[in-house]
Amino acid sequence: MGILTSMLAVHLENGRVEMRDQPRPPRPEGFALIRLLCGGICNTDLELQRGYYSFAGTPGHEFVGEVIEADSPAWVGRRVVGEINLACGACEWCRRGLGRHCPRRTVLGIVNHPGAFREYLTLPERNLHALPDALPTERAVFVEPLAAACEILDQVALPCSAEIAVLGDGKLGLLIALVLNAYGHHVHQFGRHAEKLEIARRAGVTTEAAGGTLPDMAYDWVVDATGSPEGLRQAVRMTRPRGTVILKSTVHGLVGVDTAPVIVNEITLVGSRCGRFEPALDLLSRNLVPVEELISERLPLADAPRAFERAAQKGVLKVLLRE
Amino acid sequence: MGILTSMLAVHLENGRVEMRDQPRPPRPEGFALIRLLCGGICNTDLELQRGYYSFAGTPGHEFVGEVIEADSPAWVGRRVVGEINLACGACEWCRRGLGRHCPRRTVLGIVNHPGAFREYLTLPERNLHALPDALPTERAVFVEPLAAACEILDQVALPCSAEIAVLGDGKLGLLIALVLNAYGHHVHQFGRHAEKLEIARRAGVTTEAAGGTLPDMAYDWVVDATGSPEGLRQAVRMTRPRGTVILKSTVHGLVGVDTAPVIVNEITLVGSRCGRFEPALDLLSRNLVPVEELISERLPLADAPRAFERAAQKGVLKVLLRE
Repeated sequence: MGILTSMLAVHLENGRVEMRDQPRPPRPEGFALIRLLCGGICNTDLELQRGYYSFAGTPGHEFVGEVIEADSPAWVGRRVVGEINLACGACEWCRRGLGRHCPRRTVLGIVNHPGAFREYLTLPERNLHALPDALPTERAVFVEPLAAACEILDQVALPCSAEIAVLGDGKLGLLIALVLNAYGHHVHQFGRHAEKLEIARRAGVTTEAAGGTLPDMAYDWVVDATGSPEGLRQAVRMTRPRGTVILKSTVHGLVGVDTAPVIVNEITLVGSRCGRFEPALDLLSRNLVPVEELISERLPLADAPRAFERAAQKGVLKVLLRE
Repeated sequence: MGILTSMLAVHLENGRVEMRDQPRPPRPEGFALIRLLCGGICNTDLELQRGYYSFAGTPGHEFVGEVIEADSPAWVGRRVVGEINLACGACEWCRRGLGRHCPRRTVLGIVNHPGAFREYLTLPERNLHALPDALPTERAVFVEPLAAACEILDQVALPCSAEIAVLGDGKLGLLIALVLNAYGHHVHQFGRHAEKLEIARRAGVTTEAAGGTLPDMAYDWVVDATGSPEGLRQAVRMTRPRGTVILKSTVHGLVGVDTAPVIVNEITLVGSRCGRFEPALDLLSRNLVPVEELISERLPLADAPRAFERAAQKGVLKVLLRE
């Protein structure tokens, strides 16, 4: 332990994913050294591969690991997940408990901090959450994307038993539908993939194939998780006057939005990104969201190049990288 | 009274404004027949002239008039302003007190109800607000655009003494800055016209010429009243994480919006249109907003074609049509 030895790491650059031998990372003060148990490939990882953020390095921000070394001995040996934003801890945002918006933050596997897709990673101890023994690793690896879904509930005050449309049936769309459904809301999910929608349907979500014409001005709450510019325009059309559209999927470059109905119908658009881990951990611990059904494939870390290929294929949901 | 006699009316069609002799409108049950005392030309009127809504007919929705005939004799002889949305009164929206969003509404001088720029107009009695004797007509004629400015305060929960950026120094931008200032907020108004900004500055607003570079991520609250696609993009750039942009100016067609910062910084965009008349009447009655300083010119109704020309000229603020 603590000796700089070699390890396997995913390296992403210019659209290529390859495996590299790297020295095990040094552990700065306040940080934990964590051994990867399981990683999840997210759409953001695929976007980094497509050139987003001009990323070069080790991606990966969805993970479960085991603490190998830490300042506080209590962490050692614990199975953990970790908040992905490394905040300064001192600025106005951090003082408000909003380190996720710290302007000096780095972000695990996305912005200036090497990611989790390597045998050993480091994160500040304050970013860690210990996992209950009863929570399986392959369920816990969903805590980060599930927190992003829960963020909606932290941002907008949904009335009890709200009727909500969710556009898109990718991983994030499904997690959003499942979370809102778990909280007692009436979710109508619109998507293009019958087999993906089936996961939500089994949990109690009303699902609809998005092929035909979608209802105009029909919902007070619409979540766009399509990842397409047309999705946002569609979401605006489906929203009733005074309603709210939650923007959950990043589209790069300018998106053409018809602002006239936004203003005439006084629609609110809410951008939504990462969320607190606590409610997501709670949902997973109580097994209220069947996240395991989203797992399409498991591959060893050494097969990351193939895992990225698989994750980008149509119809594939979550691809996990295992130790 | 009540006999169909001739009257002068503005007619707008294919971009042309002309005066026509028309029969005085019949008064349906529940409606008041109102003699025009003063009308105000709004940017929406100029947009109708440019082809918005393929409008053809009599425009005008900012007015003060005198009731000539009504079902309830108490109205007769009263000086009034009138809500511009003619709502059905029976639907879900109307029952919620949101007739401004009634899907069956017509809109005075905008959608399927002839406007106020004629010697006699009709409006439902329930749309009317009687004016206190002490409230001058040329102040009261601002109640409709001032209500649109007040709408912001009905839609978003501004904290006490909030710091708010207002982009744009046209009529609506000035009214918004003046209203927010009257409610104790710290308003920073950015505009291109020193003489227009001066009106806000005298009332206590901090004003800045918008020529140079504007501050990035500097405000929790930003109002876009520029009427330009660039204004919305600028507003998003100026907003801090978790901040709110209020969209107050209609731009026709698709507006290119960079959704990445909206999502990454979790910005909320709120479309905002018409407002309740009550708070606007209250502000005007207490003379808390120096609206008269926005009057650039007064012309008789018969000179409406010239008045429209003047209103469209650079540097001109409110042009009034007088009886």
